[in-house]
Amino acid sequence: MATVTIIGAGMMGSAMAYPARENGHTVRLVGTHLDREIIDTAAKTGRHIKFDRDFPEGISYHQIEDADELIKDSDVIVCGVSSFGVDWFLERIIPLIPEDVPVLSITKGLINDRGRLITYPDYWLEKSGRDLSLNAVGGPCISFDLVAHDQTSVTFCGKNIRTLEKLRDYFRTDYYHISVSEDVTGTETAVALKNGYALGIALTVGLNQKRLGIDSKLRYNSQAAIFGQSLKEMSKLLDYMGALNLESQAVGAGDLYVTVYGGRTRQIGILLGRGLNIDEAKEELKGQTLESLVIIERLADAVITNSARGILKREDFPLLMHINDILKNKAEVNIPWEKFTY
Amino acid sequence: MATVTIIGAGMMGSAMAYPARENGHTVRLVGTHLDREIIDTAAKTGRHIKFDRDFPEGISYHQIEDADELIKDSDVIVCGVSSFGVDWFLERIIPLIPEDVPVLSITKGLINDRGRLITYPDYWLEKSGRDLSLNAVGGPCISFDLVAHDQTSVTFCGKNIRTLEKLRDYFRTDYYHISVSEDVTGTETAVALKNGYALGIALTVGLNQKRLGIDSKLRYNSQAAIFGQSLKEMSKLLDYMGALNLESQAVGAGDLYVTVYGGRTRQIGILLGRGLNIDEAKEELKGQTLESLVIIERLADAVITNSARGILKREDFPLLMHINDILKNKAEVNIPWEKFTY
Repeated sequence: MATVTIIGAGMMGSAMAYPARENGHTVRLVGTHLDREIIDTAAKTGRHIKFDRDFPEGISYHQIEDADELIKDSDVIVCGVSSFGVDWFLERIIPLIPEDVPVLSITKGLINDRGRLITYPDYWLEKSGRDLSLNAVGGPCISFDLVAHDQTSVTFCGKNIRTLEKLRDYFRTDYYHISVSEDVTGTETAVALKNGYALGIALTVGLNQKRLGIDSKLRYNSQAAIFGQSLKEMSKLLDYMGALNLESQAVGAGDLYVTVYGGRTRQIGILLGRGLNIDEAKEELKGQTLESLVIIERLADAVITNSARGILKREDFPLLMHINDILKNKAEVNIPWEKFTY
Repeated sequence: MATVTIIGAGMMGSAMAYPARENGHTVRLVGTHLDREIIDTAAKTGRHIKFDRDFPEGISYHQIEDADELIKDSDVIVCGVSSFGVDWFLERIIPLIPEDVPVLSITKGLINDRGRLITYPDYWLEKSGRDLSLNAVGGPCISFDLVAHDQTSVTFCGKNIRTLEKLRDYFRTDYYHISVSEDVTGTETAVALKNGYALGIALTVGLNQKRLGIDSKLRYNSQAAIFGQSLKEMSKLLDYMGALNLESQAVGAGDLYVTVYGGRTRQIGILLGRGLNIDEAKEELKGQTLESLVIIERLADAVITNSARGILKREDFPLLMHINDILKNKAEVNIPWEKFTY
């Protein structure tokens, strides 16, 4: 049996405790400085404050001060922070990890370094200068559904297949199915992209609410039209990033499908579609972190920068450009449908 | 202004009357022998019995006996029959069409001729021996949403771009956006495939209803996992069929997205997932035509035939094979999740 240390007790990090513990491994859930209440509550009640189901028996719960000791004595570190915690993880946790202990990250996003988009594993490697095994999880997975033991199919990506297979053995259950892929860039890019494009689909829901009434039934033609356009733009970005295989495209499509129905990105897209500007929409959702807004800004900046350099064509990304315009310049939602035709 | 004659007054055929008439064209809606009540009602009330919105003013409604006369004097014939009407259209309508009048077909499906899959336009050309311009509509479009003027984005495919552009001019509105593509095989295959695979996604909904209760909330991880697997299998079938471009893949993905939420295919998938066998599930939906079941059988037969010939590998289609097994051999639903991993 292995020892699994999860750093970050947000929903996705915490959900990873279920398959690991159900497989009989030693599991420690370590909160960041932002997770103190989650950890206190879990220690008392055996349940995450956001979940409607208890953790499996036998998990230990820790505040961040225990991290140094626990990390030393682990077979795998799960990075469970959001994209806002990437630098915190780099500075506070990466230095503690022994080189023979692999990391499995659930953090989704990309860094934009003056037009160059970088996955988080690559960013951590570059910045830390360390030779760690940094692996990541892609593919469609909502934490609530994983906790409910809904059948879930994800991809673990990393540079070494043997390590990935070992990680797969730790986490694989009869409801958590894991593919392994050496296409880190493709998988991680696909996963980051869908976070931005899901907002585009939600815009159509809000637009119809404005036009047909807030309680009107959901319409799917417009959602599907944006879905198709999103896949086309994602495909171009995946090519640009050097995605190695078509599996990554399917990862992105599945992930987009699931994100359309997932909480905050959908909510803000609907609010924007209804006619609120970005400040008003953020105000409605106050206190919520919105990774999708950050990734859209980074993607759009990278497209614009690389378009100026002649590497990409911004005309190939009419949906992304419009979403960026809504977020950055408070442009009115006015989806450029005819630009999507060919 | 043009004269548009729609043959078949099912929902999708009838929905095409909206953009055409709103553009000011002369539109005649001609029912088949199965549509007598629809035509009688529309002539009296100005509304299709299945729609919640009136037809635009000025459409004329006709029983099939008028077809001969109307077809002669048309600029375009819209084929609005379901896949069950393909041979009827071949025998009754195709011989009446002048060679300079293009056809635009909304019929979705493929014929399986001893392992060779054929699109309907090709089937009509082969069987009739006539030199007609047979074009078709692909892409995500539910008739209800089109009638509600939801933003809709489709692809008209055919062998001649000029003809397609003319057809686009007839139908394009500020809510009905049309791409044109010479990839008839790719577009029509994508559109047919999604009809089968949508059933697979619905299976997971039924399985969760069985496991978690019939009123339990929708889970998306499992739907998204099947969505991703469907795209992979569809991509292999599109390659086999000789689809010309990646646009067709996006057409299929968008179309799959919309079909998951569309009526009958979803219903039968859910019933099967809940544990009914195919006969029991059909009994529940009696009187409903189920094109998706036919296309699954044809696809699966073609895969099995071509696998025996060494042209395809049936192991590449674990989802399709399982769905076929459920339909053909009354196999219990037991999705082979681990076969989807790589």
